[in-house]
Amino acid sequence: MIAVLKQGTSQEQIEHLTSWLETQGIGVHICEGHFQTIVGLLGDTSRVDEELLSGLDMVESVKRISEPFKSANRKFHPDDSIIEIPAPDGTCVKVGGGNFVAIAGPCSVESEAQILEVARAVKASGANLLRGGAFKPRTSPYDFQGLKADGIALLLEAKKETGLPIVTEIMSADHLPLFEEVDVIQVGARNMQNFELLKELGKTRKPILLKRGLANTMKEFLMSAEYIMAGGNENIILCERGVRTFETYTRNTLDLAAVPMLHELTHLPIIVDPSHATGISRLVRPMACAAAACNADGIMIEVHNDPKKALCDGPQSLTPAQFDDVMKAVLRVREAVL
Amino acid sequence: MIAVLKQGTSQEQIEHLTSWLETQGIGVHICEGHFQTIVGLLGDTSRVDEELLSGLDMVESVKRISEPFKSANRKFHPDDSIIEIPAPDGTCVKVGGGNFVAIAGPCSVESEAQILEVARAVKASGANLLRGGAFKPRTSPYDFQGLKADGIALLLEAKKETGLPIVTEIMSADHLPLFEEVDVIQVGARNMQNFELLKELGKTRKPILLKRGLANTMKEFLMSAEYIMAGGNENIILCERGVRTFETYTRNTLDLAAVPMLHELTHLPIIVDPSHATGISRLVRPMACAAAACNADGIMIEVHNDPKKALCDGPQSLTPAQFDDVMKAVLRVREAVL
Amino acid sequence: MIAVLKQGTSQEQIEHLTSWLETQGIGVHICEGHFQTIVGLLGDTSRVDEELLSGLDMVESVKRISEPFKSANRKFHPDDSIIEIPAPDGTCVKVGGGNFVAIAGPCSVESEAQILEVARAVKASGANLLRGGAFKPRTSPYDFQGLKADGIALLLEAKKETGLPIVTEIMSADHLPLFEEVDVIQVGARNMQNFELLKELGKTRKPILLKRGLANTMKEFLMSAEYIMAGGNENIILCERGVRTFETYTRNTLDLAAVPMLHELTHLPIIVDPSHATGISRLVRPMACAAAACNADGIMIEVHNDPKKALCDGPQSLTPAQFDDVMKAVLRVREAVL
Amino acid sequence: MIAVLKQGTSQEQIEHLTSWLETQGIGVHICEGHFQTIVGLLGDTSRVDEELLSGLDMVESVKRISEPFKSANRKFHPDDSIIEIPAPDGTCVKVGGGNFVAIAGPCSVESEAQILEVARAVKASGANLLRGGAFKPRTSPYDFQGLKADGIALLLEAKKETGLPIVTEIMSADHLPLFEEVDVIQVGARNMQNFELLKELGKTRKPILLKRGLANTMKEFLMSAEYIMAGGNENIILCERGVRTFETYTRNTLDLAAVPMLHELTHLPIIVDPSHATGISRLVRPMACAAAACNADGIMIEVHNDPKKALCDGPQSLTPAQFDDVMKAVLRVREAVL
Repeated sequence: MIAVLKQGTSQEQIEHLTSWLETQGIGVHICEGHFQTIVGLLGDTSRVDEELLSGLDMVESVKRISEPFKSANRKFHPDDSIIEIPAPDGTCVKVGGGNFVAIAGPCSVESEAQILEVARAVKASGANLLRGGAFKPRTSPYDFQGLKADGIALLLEAKKETGLPIVTEIMSADHLPLFEEVDVIQVGARNMQNFELLKELGKTRKPILLKRGLANTMKEFLMSAEYIMAGGNENIILCERGVRTFETYTRNTLDLAAVPMLHELTHLPIIVDPSHATGISRLVRPMACAAAACNADGIMIEVHNDPKKALCDGPQSLTPAQFDDVMKAVLRVREAVL
Repeated sequence: MIAVLKQGTSQEQIEHLTSWLETQGIGVHICEGHFQTIVGLLGDTSRVDEELLSGLDMVESVKRISEPFKSANRKFHPDDSIIEIPAPDGTCVKVGGGNFVAIAGPCSVESEAQILEVARAVKASGANLLRGGAFKPRTSPYDFQGLKADGIALLLEAKKETGLPIVTEIMSADHLPLFEEVDVIQVGARNMQNFELLKELGKTRKPILLKRGLANTMKEFLMSAEYIMAGGNENIILCERGVRTFETYTRNTLDLAAVPMLHELTHLPIIVDPSHATGISRLVRPMACAAAACNADGIMIEVHNDPKKALCDGPQSLTPAQFDDVMKAVLRVREAVL
Repeated sequence: MIAVLKQGTSQEQIEHLTSWLETQGIGVHICEGHFQTIVGLLGDTSRVDEELLSGLDMVESVKRISEPFKSANRKFHPDDSIIEIPAPDGTCVKVGGGNFVAIAGPCSVESEAQILEVARAVKASGANLLRGGAFKPRTSPYDFQGLKADGIALLLEAKKETGLPIVTEIMSADHLPLFEEVDVIQVGARNMQNFELLKELGKTRKPILLKRGLANTMKEFLMSAEYIMAGGNENIILCERGVRTFETYTRNTLDLAAVPMLHELTHLPIIVDPSHATGISRLVRPMACAAAACNADGIMIEVHNDPKKALCDGPQSLTPAQFDDVMKAVLRVREAVL
Repeated sequence: MIAVLKQGTSQEQIEHLTSWLETQGIGVHICEGHFQTIVGLLGDTSRVDEELLSGLDMVESVKRISEPFKSANRKFHPDDSIIEIPAPDGTCVKVGGGNFVAIAGPCSVESEAQILEVARAVKASGANLLRGGAFKPRTSPYDFQGLKADGIALLLEAKKETGLPIVTEIMSADHLPLFEEVDVIQVGARNMQNFELLKELGKTRKPILLKRGLANTMKEFLMSAEYIMAGGNENIILCERGVRTFETYTRNTLDLAAVPMLHELTHLPIIVDPSHATGISRLVRPMACAAAACNADGIMIEVHNDPKKALCDGPQSLTPAQFDDVMKAVLRVREAVL
C-alpha cells in the first residue's frame, strides 16, 4: 500500500503518521521525491482502513498494491481449495482442484411431479447437484415469490429419491433453520453485499454458493467471500453469472475472463451460470462450453420439464434433452483443454 | 403491455392465451399484421408476470408500455406525497410537495462529544434532520463496522439535546427493535434489493429513506419502493446517491437527471446525497446546489467536526463551517428556480 | 415497429399519421385500447426514422420490434456469409460458414527483423493471416504512434516472404491509397462509429475487419456494418474485443455471449480478440479456447518475439511458443464442439 | 509514477531500468521493501509510455500518481483559459473565466426559414452562439444525414442576419475547407477519439467544441484535448453531454459532477448539453439550471421552431418560448451561486 503525501507535509507530521502505522504492525518506508513524498506501507496491509488513511489531511492519495482480501488470497494459500459436499450415499461431491461440478434444476420448485421428473432427468445426464428455487428474489412484489418452506421440502424429497445433494437460495438469515438439511446454500447476486447475511453464513460450516453481484468488481466479490471466511467458514464456491452493462440483447454480460482472473487471485473454486447470465436458452450451450474451455470448476444450468409453463425464467430454461446434449459437449471441451 | 407472437401461431393458441389473460382481469386486443400478430394487453398489467408471459412458446417478445409499479406511480396518484416526520417538540418535518429537507451529520457516530458537537452545528446552519451511521456496511470485514446499538443511543441523546429527528441505516430486519425510537430508517444502496428487509419495513409505518442501488435502474428503484408500499407503508423518501460507471475520478456518477425523471414517474419525494456520490468534499457544494437547481426535495450531506480523524469516509465530509456555506447557497438556488 | 399514441389523439391526427407513413411504403394497423391507441407499422421499417417518429407530438413512445439493420440481418440472408481473402499463392483464406481463421502478429510493426521473425513463427503454428499495427490509435499524443507507411511496407515484405495475407488498421480515409495492397483493412473500436470512414470503406471491395466499440451495443455494431454494406461492400468480418465496464482487473470485459447472439442476428462472421479484451497475456489462452467453444469464426492474437521490449501492449502479447500452444488447444476445442 | 517490481528482480536489472529511465529525463527513487521494491519516477512522466513500462518483465504493476495530460493540466496553468470567439460586429464572445456562454439552435439545419426564425428567437432570449447540424452522425445509414454544405451556407446566412457566431459539427478532416467561416468547430462524442481528426484540428487555430465520448473517462477526455493542444491549438471548449450506463429512461446519464471535477483538473472551460444527455425536452430546464448551479461555463440547448416536425431529435428540442424561460432561470441560478 502506498500513501502519497501532500506537498508541504512537515517532518513532524510524517513521524506522527509513521508511529501511528507502526502501532498497527505496519512497516513504513519513506521515499522523498522532488515534488512529493511517498510512504510505502509494508506487511499485512489488509487490515489498514484505506478510507481512514486517505482521510488524513496530509495524504493526497492512497493506492493499494497488495489485495485487501487475505483468507481468499491465493498468495497465502497457493493450492486450490476443494469444497466437499456430502451425498446421501456417503460419498462426496467435490468442487475445485480439477473436480468439475454440474448443477442443474428448475428456476423454481413448482410441484412434486416437476422436481422429481427434472431431478431424475438431470441425474441421468450427469448432473451431480440439484438446484431449485424455494425463496425467489423477484424485482416485482407482484411476481411469484416461490413455494418457500414447501419448496425446500420438495427438494429434500427429490434428494432422497435421486441421491443428489441440493442447492437453494437463502434470502434472509432468519430462514437458516429451514436450511438445516440443505447441502449448499446459495447467496444471490442481489445479496452479495448483504453483509449481515454473510456474517451469519460465516458462523455455519455449510458450503456457500456465492454469486457475483450485478455490478460488483472481482475485488468486491472476493471481499464478500472474505466476510464469510472471516467467520470461519471456508467452504465457498464462487459463481460468475453476468454483470450489468448497456447491452440489451442479452439480460446480462457474462464476464468469462473473470474465471481465469479469479483463479489467479484466489484458491476458491469458480463456477459459471450461463442461464441467468444470458437469459436466453439458445445461448446456454455455447456459453456452458465456453465456461468449460476457460477452466471453470463447474456450471449451473436451469432445466425445466416444460419450460413454456415455467412459473419464472421460462425463456432461459433447457429441456432435459437439451441439457443432456450440453453435458456431452461440455465434457468433450474439458478433455480438449486439459 | 404488448406481446409479439411467433409466426405461425394458431388461432387456437391465440384464443388459449386470450382466455388465460382474461382470467387475470386483463383485456386483450389482437392486431394481425402481414408478418406478425401483436397482442395488446389492457387494464392493470402491473400484476402480469412479464417473464412468465415471455416464457410461453408462442410468444416472440414482450414489451411493457405502462410501468410495472403501481402504488408509487404518479399516474394513479397525481399529487406529490408529503412525508411527515414528527419532531420531539410536537412539530413535523415535512419532505416533498415543496418542502425541502436538509439532512446532515457524520458518516459514523463515534462518540458523545462528536455527535453532539456536529448535531448542534448542523442545526444552527438549518439542517432539520440529523444523520449518523451506527451500523456501517463496509466492503471489508476488517474495516470499522460502526458502534451499533451504542451508536443509536448516542444519536437519541443528540436528538434529545437538539430536537432534531434522526436518520440511521438498518442492515438487517433483526435489528428493528433497536430502531424503535429512530425517526427515519435508511436502507442503503447495497440493500436496495434485499427484498426480505423491504417486506419487513413495509409492515412498519416508519418513514423509510430508500437509497438507489449502485447499478439499479429507476424502474428497479421504484419497484423496491413498491415492495415497501405493497406492505402498507407509504412513507418513503427516495435518495439518488450516484450509480456505478467506468469513471474513476469520482467514486460514483451522480445521476441528477433522475431527480426530474423520477418526479415525473412517481409522487414520492426524491432527495440527493452528493457526499457519497462523489466521495470528494470539494464537490459537495456544487453538486448540492445542482440538486436544488433540478428541484430535489432535499439533500443529505456528511458533516464531521474533524474530518481528518473520521473513522470512515473522511475524504467526503464537510466541516460545520463548510456545511453552513453550502446551506446558504442551496437556499439561494431554491429561490432562483421557483 | 409500434407507436403508442398519447391519450386524446384525434381521429384526424391518426389519419394524417397513417397517410404520411403509407407514403413511405409502410403498412399501418391501428389497435384502439381503453387507455391508449397503438399503431403497428408493417413492412420494411428499417428506413423509418425512429427519432423523427417519436418527435411527433401525438406519439407517446415508439418501440421497434424488427431490427433496424437490413443487409446484415440474417432474416433476409439465412446462410452464413463466407469472406474470401486472396492469398499470394492464388488460394483463398475463407472466414465464416465453418471456416476458422487465426490472425496473429505484433501489436506494432517495429522492424524488418521483428515482423519477419513473428510472421514465420505464427505461420508455422497455423496462423493464416498476419496482423501488425502501422497506424496506432493511442490515448496519449505522446505515446508511440506507429511506423505508418513504413510499417505497411514491412508488412508487405513479410507477406511476400511468408505468403500470409495481412491485416492492419486504418485511422483515416485519407490513408486509403497506402492500403492498396493490404488484404484486410481493420477499423478499430474507437472508429466504429466514424461514419465518414465507414462510408468510404463501403466504396471499396476490400474485406473489412470491424471491431466493436468500447461501449457499443450489438445493434449499433451491426448498424456500423450496415453503413459499409449500404455502400456495396459486403465483405465484413465482425470482431468482439471487449466492452467497457466498472471492472478494473481486466482492461475490458470480453462479451463472449455476443458471439452466439450475433450469429443469430447476422450472417456475417464473428471473430474474437482476447489479447486486447483482457490486456493480460496469461488470460489469452483460456479466452481463445472459450471463443472457439462458443463457435467464434476465428481469433486474433498478439504475438511478439520479445514482449518485454514491445513498443506497445507488451503485457498482453504472447511469445511464439505460447501462441503455438494456444493454437493446438483451440483446434482441439473446435473438434470438441462440432 | 510508480513501478512495482516483481520479487527477485536483480540489482543489475534495476540499474538497467534506472539508466533507461534517466535517458528519458526521468529521475528515479528506489524504495526496497521486505516483499517488494518500488521505483518512484520523478519529473515529467507525461511522456513515459505506461504500457511499455508495464511490459518490462521485471515490472509487476505501474501506477500513475500525476496525470498524463500536460498542456490541459491546471497544475501547469493555474488560471482559467478564456476562449475568445470573434463576432461579426468586431466584439468577442468569451467562454470561461467567469464568462458564461449560451449556445442554442436546431439539431439539424433544415431550411432558410427555419434557421433564421430560430436564430432570431434564441438571440432575443440571450443566446450568444448559434448551433445547427449540417453534417449529422446518425446510427443508421438510412436516417437523415444533414444538408451538409448547404446547411453550412444557411448557418452563415443566419450569422450574417443575426450577428451570432456559429457552431457546427465536423465529421471528417476532409470537410475542413467547408468550415472556413465557421466560428466554432464541434467534435461529436463518437469522434472524441478520432485521433487523426484531432491532429488536423490541432493545426488550425479555430475554437474547438470537444464533446465527451459516450463511455470515456475524464482522463481520456482531457487526453483528447491534449491531442489538439499538442498541435498548437489551445482554443478548446469541453462539453459534458452524458455518458452511457444501464439506465434506459434517459438517453444517457448526465455526469454533472464532471463539471467541478474537470474544473479542478484543467484550465479549459466546460459547458453542458442537457438536450442530448437526457433526450427529453421536459428535462432540459432542470438540468440546464443544475449545470449553472455547479458552475458550468455555458450550456448548449436544442431549440426548434416546430419540434414536432424536426427532421431529427425532435423529442429533446425546446420551443423558442421554452428556451426563453430556461435562459431566465439559468441566469437567476448563476446569480445565486456566485
